Amino acid sequence: MKLVKVYVTLKPSVLDSQGEAIKSAVHSMGYDQVEKVSMGKYFELHFQDYENLEKDVDAICDELLTNPNIETYRYEILEEK
Amino acid sequence: MKLVKVYVTLKPSVLDSQGEAIKSAVHSMGYDQVEKVSMGKYFELHFQDYENLEKDVDAICDELLTNPNIETYRYEILEEK
Repeated sequence: MKLVKVYVTLKPSVLDSQGEAIKSAVHSMGYDQVEKVSMGKYFELHFQDYENLEKDVDAICDELLTNPNIETYRYEILEEK
Repeated sequence: MKLVKVYVTLKPSVLDSQGEAIKSAVHSMGYDQVEKVSMGKYFELHFQDYENLEKDVDAICDELLTNPNIETYRYEILEEK
């Protein structure tokens, strides 16, 4: 089994309004040392082992998990017992 | 500067309906090798350097970024140039 951890974030050129809102809330809690907050999505996919796993992960990320117009992704593939 | 990456996931006992929906969509794309999908949230917080950063990160996670009834979190603190 493989565990694929996918991190989806907004492209740097896109305004992260959720991140900005969280930054304001953090400041109102008194933590002024926080200079920037970004919010994204996180997925864990558990795969059976097989060849060409990465190609399929790319397809799933491109077609389902992200909006390629505004989001970008990275992932890591871990061995799972 | 420190970069804090926070991963928020549902507790295992909580039904992950978004994850289930994504798993169904992945299967309908033909990728039957995916056995389980979990969806969570991902945050990046950029902090000024200071002592006791972890205590504040814990407070921000507990009070703002997660719903402690149904979610759990982990984070990593990285050095940022």
